[in-house]
Amino acid sequence: MITYWLDYDWVPDSRTEKLMMEAFGRMVEERERGVAGYYHLPEDSKLLETEVKAWMASNPVLPRCDTIVLIGIGGSSLGTRAVDSMLRHGTENVKRFVFLENPDPVDISEKLSTIRKEKTLFIVVSKSGTTIETISLFKTVIDRFDLDLKGTDRSRVLVITDEGSPLCRFADDHELKAYTIPENVGGRFSVLSAVGIVPLTIAGYDTCGILQGASDMVTRFFERREKHIEKKAAFMATHWERYRMNVLFAYATFLEEFSGWYVHLWGESLGKIDAEGMHVGPTPIGRIGAVDQHSFLQLVMEGPRDKTVTFMKVVDFENDLKIPSLTLENIENADYINTHTFNELINAECDATLQSMVEKKIPVDLIALDRMTPANVGELIVYYELLTSMTGAMLDIDIYTQPGLERGKTILINKFEKDR
Amino acid sequence: MITYWLDYDWVPDSRTEKLMMEAFGRMVEERERGVAGYYHLPEDSKLLETEVKAWMASNPVLPRCDTIVLIGIGGSSLGTRAVDSMLRHGTENVKRFVFLENPDPVDISEKLSTIRKEKTLFIVVSKSGTTIETISLFKTVIDRFDLDLKGTDRSRVLVITDEGSPLCRFADDHELKAYTIPENVGGRFSVLSAVGIVPLTIAGYDTCGILQGASDMVTRFFERREKHIEKKAAFMATHWERYRMNVLFAYATFLEEFSGWYVHLWGESLGKIDAEGMHVGPTPIGRIGAVDQHSFLQLVMEGPRDKTVTFMKVVDFENDLKIPSLTLENIENADYINTHTFNELINAECDATLQSMVEKKIPVDLIALDRMTPANVGELIVYYELLTSMTGAMLDIDIYTQPGLERGKTILINKFEKDR
Repeated sequence: MITYWLDYDWVPDSRTEKLMMEAFGRMVEERERGVAGYYHLPEDSKLLETEVKAWMASNPVLPRCDTIVLIGIGGSSLGTRAVDSMLRHGTENVKRFVFLENPDPVDISEKLSTIRKEKTLFIVVSKSGTTIETISLFKTVIDRFDLDLKGTDRSRVLVITDEGSPLCRFADDHELKAYTIPENVGGRFSVLSAVGIVPLTIAGYDTCGILQGASDMVTRFFERREKHIEKKAAFMATHWERYRMNVLFAYATFLEEFSGWYVHLWGESLGKIDAEGMHVGPTPIGRIGAVDQHSFLQLVMEGPRDKTVTFMKVVDFENDLKIPSLTLENIENADYINTHTFNELINAECDATLQSMVEKKIPVDLIALDRMTPANVGELIVYYELLTSMTGAMLDIDIYTQPGLERGKTILINKFEKDR
Repeated sequence: MITYWLDYDWVPDSRTEKLMMEAFGRMVEERERGVAGYYHLPEDSKLLETEVKAWMASNPVLPRCDTIVLIGIGGSSLGTRAVDSMLRHGTENVKRFVFLENPDPVDISEKLSTIRKEKTLFIVVSKSGTTIETISLFKTVIDRFDLDLKGTDRSRVLVITDEGSPLCRFADDHELKAYTIPENVGGRFSVLSAVGIVPLTIAGYDTCGILQGASDMVTRFFERREKHIEKKAAFMATHWERYRMNVLFAYATFLEEFSGWYVHLWGESLGKIDAEGMHVGPTPIGRIGAVDQHSFLQLVMEGPRDKTVTFMKVVDFENDLKIPSLTLENIENADYINTHTFNELINAECDATLQSMVEKKIPVDLIALDRMTPANVGELIVYYELLTSMTGAMLDIDIYTQPGLERGKTILINKFEKDR
């Protein structure tokens, strides 16, 4: 179960209420017409999960594999990384992931040195099937591990890409197993498609539970309208010029990757030129509590009032590590926390920080997960996707494209082409 | 060597020039009067480095230690983490660090399970000597590893704190080795004091080289005035209301921790209420290239023009990993990068992205390190500290305090006290 709580000291006026209704209508239409495919993934991917399990049962190399090397960047990797981080400590017997993502030679070399081919399944993920970093890393892996893609290593490599993409055709030619991504599902909305569900299922996660949590959230949103999502989206869409940043302050180290996924989802979806040619969109920032209270809190409290803050906490970490009942001479002042759990400490820090911001009238909201379960992970993913769609609809922008990346890509290609 | 380059399309007017001169004067005074002690650390800590080496030679448990557990949070840990990340791949035989920082029970439990007492040196870092997370973690470690601080384990624990602090008195009573932090050096400016120099020297890093690079930068700044620092600080201080965020886009995975240190340094120093009661300060954001081109670039390019972007790159990674000369059928379009190194690819991505922003007239600057050397690390640290001081001086704020944290601490203590 996840509880959502807003403290904005703001009531939408009738114009905003109308905008909210229209945005909801736009989402209903997007879902029905298939403009955005992510709404259907929680249900559609249940079948996929069954297929993956059947494939796993028949794959000859998988029983010896303890490692999955996932080659992919951005939307092809962030969602899987987020889920892996959130659920790893609570799941038994999951395979290790190695994410080959950044084209940084030091990073790649270090990771390659930890890989043993005979214990590894390689998964290549690229929606377009041409992502330069991913294809370069795929070639590196083929070369380094001498992968025989026309013979013995066919069952060791799996591809996830768009139907008909160059990578898809490559896989077909080599009879490599390929899973496809629905055309109307963009990278940053794709974690519940094959992009995330295939590797996470193979790793050993309860993807069925994730999908069920996601599905329930989609249903609740479209049937009952989740008022807290509508209000938060409306606040963001109508106040982003004043509150230019939304800080996700997540109180758990294992939420760091999720926070990276959120930054991607929001940043790339909402940072747009709107119908009137205006540059719009709030900037997402991810911070981790309690550590970043010691680095970022001062700025939020006393710096410009240009931020909203979303607190995220896990009520029950299912870990009872306690602060021992020890008194250190001269530091008796710290004894007030003795015999309490770290679970209590970190959440009390979250509550205290939230309260100190409420007192300063900084607009905050709280997302409280009762526990870190697959269903909660699924709900959280869809919650953020719906929030993004609704905010985008109210800003009147196209959240599903990313035209701002093209210029850099062209310059990059020209840099190399001209040397040839 | 580090090269600095600015593209702001802006010339300071005479009023701003005057502000710059006054800010420089304020820094000269801060340095001479000892208002801020960090200016002297590069020279003063050279002696410290010699002392640490002597202590190391005489410590009976150190020869068997391959791990340093550093217990500290925020300024007590971020700088050491940053340097460790940046120099690890290029340094041989360094000890492993385990950072016990976040009071997250899952995180702590996982880290504790990797520690073997007989191979570990424990370092406790807290400027005030009362930081609740740090003291709680210290107690946990004492309890878990049954540390006998009145006898055999005395040489296994080392303390870094302010002279006379509760933790310092605790160490004195137990005859634990303690290094002190100069009173006029705040946590976020302390990496070149005992806070960073002691653990980094013990781990095996060339701290002498780091200090030399730092010292050279301080000298250059005060003797010749580094115009690029003055201009960047002046731009930030006079444009922060328009450009509310500075994004540090660092092109190397091992720069991620440095980027966390930068966020801390800027956020906590510059997010302040100024002399006229106004909430001021630009917000620092850390992103990693090339990965975050796939998550944050769209927002910078097409979202609101409210960001400056600082690119950071390492010209020579000293790693010649190449993209193999392989053609994948149907993906021949990606062959333009074949036989180039990943070093070339990641830096070409940096250059292309920078150029695409320059074309859009987004204010950018570039920090290019020729290689990842100890001297460059030292220079980079001081560069950012000087930049922060100068920006703060121009904003007319006190950058060395953090009053915004007190309220949350009081609420936290009350939460626990009332239950007793």
